[in-house]
Amino acid sequence: MKKDLAIVLVSGGLDSCVTSAIAESQNYDLAFLHLNYGQRTEKKELECFNDLSEHFKVKAKLVVDVSHLAKIGGSSLTDSAIPVTEANLETTEIPSSYVPFRNANILAIAVSWAEVIGAKKIFIGAVEEDSSGYPDCRENFFQAFNQVIETGTKPETKIQIETPIIHNTKDEIVKIGIELKAPLKKTWSCYSENEIACGKCDSCALRLRGFAKAGEKDPIPYA
Amino acid sequence: MKKDLAIVLVSGGLDSCVTSAIAESQNYDLAFLHLNYGQRTEKKELECFNDLSEHFKVKAKLVVDVSHLAKIGGSSLTDSAIPVTEANLETTEIPSSYVPFRNANILAIAVSWAEVIGAKKIFIGAVEEDSSGYPDCRENFFQAFNQVIETGTKPETKIQIETPIIHNTKDEIVKIGIELKAPLKKTWSCYSENEIACGKCDSCALRLRGFAKAGEKDPIPYA
Repeated sequence: MKKDLAIVLVSGGLDSCVTSAIAESQNYDLAFLHLNYGQRTEKKELECFNDLSEHFKVKAKLVVDVSHLAKIGGSSLTDSAIPVTEANLETTEIPSSYVPFRNANILAIAVSWAEVIGAKKIFIGAVEEDSSGYPDCRENFFQAFNQVIETGTKPETKIQIETPIIHNTKDEIVKIGIELKAPLKKTWSCYSENEIACGKCDSCALRLRGFAKAGEKDPIPYA
Repeated sequence: MKKDLAIVLVSGGLDSCVTSAIAESQNYDLAFLHLNYGQRTEKKELECFNDLSEHFKVKAKLVVDVSHLAKIGGSSLTDSAIPVTEANLETTEIPSSYVPFRNANILAIAVSWAEVIGAKKIFIGAVEEDSSGYPDCRENFFQAFNQVIETGTKPETKIQIETPIIHNTKDEIVKIGIELKAPLKKTWSCYSENEIACGKCDSCALRLRGFAKAGEKDPIPYA
């Protein structure tokens, strides 16, 4: 029987890799979508995206340039004049790496593509816990977006966003990934560097803490 | 007193011109956003956008390339292999000029920009009547999108989409435009041509019928 098609948003990071493994385990054919929004680490992320596409034998892949988000600005991920904030995992403030409304931009593109290729699901590896400062990473945002899809696409179209790891902690995500044999060594989380992960930025700190709590060794090298 | 800032989505067409005039009449400072999504008539639309920006003395303007929508395809507006459908104003089928989920893509960009420049409103000249086939032109879509903005932006951010002509007929829009002295001769609606409007495509047919019903002469030339 022909499998349904699911798009996975694949940044090339740990979360999107584990999300891909979950989508595969739910018996979907996969199509991978990667966004280049002018981030510092684009080169390495794209390399991981291509490695992961090969690993998961995707039916389709699409890389979309959304560097207009850099033009719009307002974030250290896209504006080289704003320094990357060093990790402060206790804060609830919105970090400077915030690209305003980024996930809505990404999901809108994913839905357009889903409607064209006939995908039924859009998987995104958003995690509430480690991105509590990002308003567009919370479950109620994705629920509201599902309503927008319902009202804004053709009547016969049924596309839904799936956020399978949204309530997981990073150590749980590491464990799920290992259980599903996800290729975690082909992922990149560092916000700052393209060769050896810095180990210091928010994203590295979260990842390293996750592996430590899970009692596992992170397979990628750090500076 | 300092005026609030409103973004207006300005394609360069009749509807966006009249919407700009309405936003101005509501005492907002204006910022204009134009999207180039690879449509056939981009050259002429951009010319109108610039003329209208000058006329309305905008505080900021931004042109964003979203030609990835062309890459995603599925529409005669962006895919030169699909012929433009000739007007059939009676049909309720979704026309071939449909770009899947286009308005969600456009609004997501507008919200990102609004958050950066501090705009309170996003005006869009969507009209239910003449675009009944486009799911993302209906009022319930915009209402759902306002919920996505509410959940997906910073808590202190208050941005709302305004659709002031959504329930108007084209002849009413023409009349409002004339009453507000909107520069209708600096607009372009044709889907097909860049120099002289074809007069035959859906968009020309709707516009011409609107002017005729309003008892007014369309100030632009037709083939």
